Amino acid sequence: MPIPEANLYPPFNIVRLSHVEYRVTDLAASRAFYVDTLGLQVTDEDDTAIYLRAMEERGHHCIALVKADAASVGCLGFKVYDEAELDKAAAWFDGQGLGVEWVERPFIGRCFRTRDPYGIPLEFYCRMDRLPPIHQQYKLYRGVKPLRIDHFNMFSSDVDASVAFYNSIGFRVTEYTEDAETGRCWAAWMHRKGGVHDVAFTNGTGPRLHHTAFWVPTPLNIIDLLDLMATTGYVGNIERGPGRHGISNAFFLYIRDPDGHRIEIYCSDYMTVDPDLEPIKWDLKDPQRQTLWGSPAPRSWFEEGSVFEGAELVESALKAQPIIAP
Amino acid sequence: MPIPEANLYPPFNIVRLSHVEYRVTDLAASRAFYVDTLGLQVTDEDDTAIYLRAMEERGHHCIALVKADAASVGCLGFKVYDEAELDKAAAWFDGQGLGVEWVERPFIGRCFRTRDPYGIPLEFYCRMDRLPPIHQQYKLYRGVKPLRIDHFNMFSSDVDASVAFYNSIGFRVTEYTEDAETGRCWAAWMHRKGGVHDVAFTNGTGPRLHHTAFWVPTPLNIIDLLDLMATTGYVGNIERGPGRHGISNAFFLYIRDPDGHRIEIYCSDYMTVDPDLEPIKWDLKDPQRQTLWGSPAPRSWFEEGSVFEGAELVESALKAQPIIAP
Amino acid sequence: MPIPEANLYPPFNIVRLSHVEYRVTDLAASRAFYVDTLGLQVTDEDDTAIYLRAMEERGHHCIALVKADAASVGCLGFKVYDEAELDKAAAWFDGQGLGVEWVERPFIGRCFRTRDPYGIPLEFYCRMDRLPPIHQQYKLYRGVKPLRIDHFNMFSSDVDASVAFYNSIGFRVTEYTEDAETGRCWAAWMHRKGGVHDVAFTNGTGPRLHHTAFWVPTPLNIIDLLDLMATTGYVGNIERGPGRHGISNAFFLYIRDPDGHRIEIYCSDYMTVDPDLEPIKWDLKDPQRQTLWGSPAPRSWFEEGSVFEGAELVESALKAQPIIAP
Amino acid sequence: MPIPEANLYPPFNIVRLSHVEYRVTDLAASRAFYVDTLGLQVTDEDDTAIYLRAMEERGHHCIALVKADAASVGCLGFKVYDEAELDKAAAWFDGQGLGVEWVERPFIGRCFRTRDPYGIPLEFYCRMDRLPPIHQQYKLYRGVKPLRIDHFNMFSSDVDASVAFYNSIGFRVTEYTEDAETGRCWAAWMHRKGGVHDVAFTNGTGPRLHHTAFWVPTPLNIIDLLDLMATTGYVGNIERGPGRHGISNAFFLYIRDPDGHRIEIYCSDYMTVDPDLEPIKWDLKDPQRQTLWGSPAPRSWFEEGSVFEGAELVESALKAQPIIAP
Repeated sequence: MPIPEANLYPPFNIVRLSHVEYRVTDLAASRAFYVDTLGLQVTDEDDTAIYLRAMEERGHHCIALVKADAASVGCLGFKVYDEAELDKAAAWFDGQGLGVEWVERPFIGRCFRTRDPYGIPLEFYCRMDRLPPIHQQYKLYRGVKPLRIDHFNMFSSDVDASVAFYNSIGFRVTEYTEDAETGRCWAAWMHRKGGVHDVAFTNGTGPRLHHTAFWVPTPLNIIDLLDLMATTGYVGNIERGPGRHGISNAFFLYIRDPDGHRIEIYCSDYMTVDPDLEPIKWDLKDPQRQTLWGSPAPRSWFEEGSVFEGAELVESALKAQPIIAP
Repeated sequence: MPIPEANLYPPFNIVRLSHVEYRVTDLAASRAFYVDTLGLQVTDEDDTAIYLRAMEERGHHCIALVKADAASVGCLGFKVYDEAELDKAAAWFDGQGLGVEWVERPFIGRCFRTRDPYGIPLEFYCRMDRLPPIHQQYKLYRGVKPLRIDHFNMFSSDVDASVAFYNSIGFRVTEYTEDAETGRCWAAWMHRKGGVHDVAFTNGTGPRLHHTAFWVPTPLNIIDLLDLMATTGYVGNIERGPGRHGISNAFFLYIRDPDGHRIEIYCSDYMTVDPDLEPIKWDLKDPQRQTLWGSPAPRSWFEEGSVFEGAELVESALKAQPIIAP
Repeated sequence: MPIPEANLYPPFNIVRLSHVEYRVTDLAASRAFYVDTLGLQVTDEDDTAIYLRAMEERGHHCIALVKADAASVGCLGFKVYDEAELDKAAAWFDGQGLGVEWVERPFIGRCFRTRDPYGIPLEFYCRMDRLPPIHQQYKLYRGVKPLRIDHFNMFSSDVDASVAFYNSIGFRVTEYTEDAETGRCWAAWMHRKGGVHDVAFTNGTGPRLHHTAFWVPTPLNIIDLLDLMATTGYVGNIERGPGRHGISNAFFLYIRDPDGHRIEIYCSDYMTVDPDLEPIKWDLKDPQRQTLWGSPAPRSWFEEGSVFEGAELVESALKAQPIIAP
Repeated sequence: MPIPEANLYPPFNIVRLSHVEYRVTDLAASRAFYVDTLGLQVTDEDDTAIYLRAMEERGHHCIALVKADAASVGCLGFKVYDEAELDKAAAWFDGQGLGVEWVERPFIGRCFRTRDPYGIPLEFYCRMDRLPPIHQQYKLYRGVKPLRIDHFNMFSSDVDASVAFYNSIGFRVTEYTEDAETGRCWAAWMHRKGGVHDVAFTNGTGPRLHHTAFWVPTPLNIIDLLDLMATTGYVGNIERGPGRHGISNAFFLYIRDPDGHRIEIYCSDYMTVDPDLEPIKWDLKDPQRQTLWGSPAPRSWFEEGSVFEGAELVESALKAQPIIAP
């Protein structure tokens, strides 16, 4: 199935990905990881939840860590352009029969909850509490100096279908991997905010969240984080990298939080605001799409992910990718 | 005059700044500067003009160097969303009495020429020739490794008026400097594409182009360029920096081309796609807005700029800013 | 006067510069500067003194901050190869009539105090308390991530004479500035430990300490320090830089401590261990020797320095260098 | 066997490692690798040999590439302090019965050839042709911007014996790996010039050259090289890294030349000039000694090396280290 044509006139205007709710089993352990090690800033916390933002963000939070009995992902949040677009979005999801529930969320204005056709829990809103800028309070920078949330990456049991759905609500494919044998899309990167992606989908048992990514200033910040993690008891949480992705051209590192949720640290993709930007196609057989420099990813990276609250897992019909690392 | 409210529903959709036409007196000297020293890529050239793109750009060019008897700026180019928006833009400028002339431009589709109310020559189009990606052809990277054109900065004799005009066509103020004594806006940074600015205006004899800026990966690329220029006969072309702007938080360097056109090399501003992003206000008396680290800019930086072809210069009524550098 | 031939067989073996005693008027203010801002590690402290080391050093301290009524420099310390070399050094200084006083110094073994012929107080020892390595305890890295003390730079009223003296005890000239009009040496950089310098001398009212320098990993650490100082109340303590010296090729920053003692932050000189390394000569009229990129140093940088305890100041007979910055 | 005490008064004074002669089967292919890709500078070349130096070196060459029918290492070169030390060195090797042959070497003055007790061919000299500095000719910098040769690393079938021998001629152990089960030294790093090592030895079939290392300014230069190699046909020549060694704290990359000779690109070790520097001991069972960040090295890195001309291979009696990578 070929990549769909970019949908330049979507039914409502999503500005960007906004936040993720991670359900975690030990708030103190999560705080040590996200705050003391990665360097995210606490914007609110109590016995049941911790809210975090990155250094250049003015919205209240990009991660909500919520105490739970088992690790999972509560929802993925997206910001729409204004109240009118929010209402259009609600009407659209309702019209698709996907269900719309208006919910109360701390620090967020009007907000509705729905799911994509494959069960991923989604939230849409247009106003979140705004906080004063801290990006020039350099004494607050710690860890990897995270600047902003960048994207979500998900396992999908039918990437062609996921791409078609997110394309229909205005996400545009910037790069994708095609399985030449079947003509199917193996993986795709889709954006709203002008970088390589706000969301990406990879073939696998889904829906699951593969990772949430944060943008940092330079590769040296990633090296600093590796040195810090390697000498503060987190060496086992380093999963893959550092390296350069062929796809997106990003310099990357993948790490796992204390519950196994995967975080990507990331810099150096490119601007994609041109409506006529041509998607870049990669062949599933080209190992440099994964790692430009050639070193393979570990098996865990291909196989493990975080489950979404209330979503039923479906295996992909496509055969697994050959894994060449241990 | 307070900064106008962001115009979230402009009359047409500008995607981003696109290109500048520099009229230069010696194409070979300009080529040595832009190509051999900065590292821009030639996409077309003949005896009368050289077309250049930066490493991640797929549009045909971001700079057109055109042979002329005297240095000036031919026009500033902007890309709009699609053909319909292009027609809306033409109708709007025509309705404002600013004049619309449909012109033939090499490598560009339908394109019209107009001026802003203060005489700056502008071009709008939606399709430019697209070129294959080269951002992963690392052997081509040279000089400062320029990734993309970032913004235009202009002298205006009435910044309040310039801001009002560009706000009316959808540019949003992200940061601005207010003269507390008069309540007037001294300078403003306005964006379309999601960074701190596509265009900026500073008080002074105008209209003149203060500089065109290019985005580079890290501050180390700027240091590399300084070392290169300092040892290849360009030490006199280094005007200001390196430093950190308070405004925009950018790490910057200002250099002058062989005709005196000013180029800023720039990295590390922040994402501004939120429609409710609050503009940051700076006081004209705060020297850290200019240079966070405190070192002053030279007089030339405050006073010199490139004239626009056919635009009449007007002095600003506001008194000159105190200059503290030599 | 030409630079003396390198003295490859000196009377005793100095390993490297070791430490400086800064007399400071407010220990708490000095601690905020050196520890909280620069990132040096406290190895001992009480009401009268604070001892500091940099991240890769295993000797007990490279700076002793000693409470005093007025700011000055107590002494410059040097490490010799072994006890036998220490005795040879003492005998040599005694033989020169410069005075030798065996002194008790905290954390240091046998140690004698003397002065150079121009009054600079010097200490020599071979054993200082050794501390466990901390260079891989990355959670301790802060501020500019100082790795090691690198050199002392001093004003001398007769640079030719200073060079001759330090050459006689084995320091080798790596680079120097000659005043072509007089044939005199204006400034010289001299090493023992294999970099561009352990000590340097510049023409001026002397003896005074111009600065003590610390080595850091990359230019980005210097940019981090600038951002931190600029936003934590230290913007006025930033004196010069960042920039590249022509001489030594170092990327540099000069800052002032709360008492005005000058600290250079420094990276990227080169290895000088070859006994036949040819000194590099610079012309006093070449401004790129000071700043490869062309921007001038401020007047304070040329004129101000820290006095040495008990040393009498002498003006230089050479005329002052033309200063081109404010 | 414990690490021997540092020999602070060796029989002659070696300044540093100096150069390696690589025998290569295709000079043009080697030139493309070392010159066009790594960025070493050609100082002489003809149909039979190419001589190369790094950017801050003033000696004529650090690598001689010599055309041969099969790949091997001709010799490892070392610079001694002066002619007297050269004669002392010759007398010492002769006295050990290791053989001394005075040889003619292009661009090198008096020079003798010998072997260490395990067959490694060594050359000693004190004067090599000196070339003008090029470290500030920034237009010449290419590839990884190699600054200087840093060290040789060799397989030894008896590391304890190799350490004892090189210790006897003044190389000092800075870090080492002990096999706790046998008490034997598994690997050792030994220096003359003031960094972590000029030579290192690792248990394995020997003598073979594991790699020659080059020093570069920052980790970003290594990332640049990876990007370049990955997109110019050299992705298969990338063997291991980038990463941080626990031992030496170096940021590293290992690549293979067209004949399989291994080159390490390296930055950020530490200064070791203190005669009382305490060696750092690592346990063979600690995987972080190899890679601080935890990712394993490939099997080839543990097993493959370059043979020395005329040296007989001996297997180590120590059992092979468990390899955990593919």
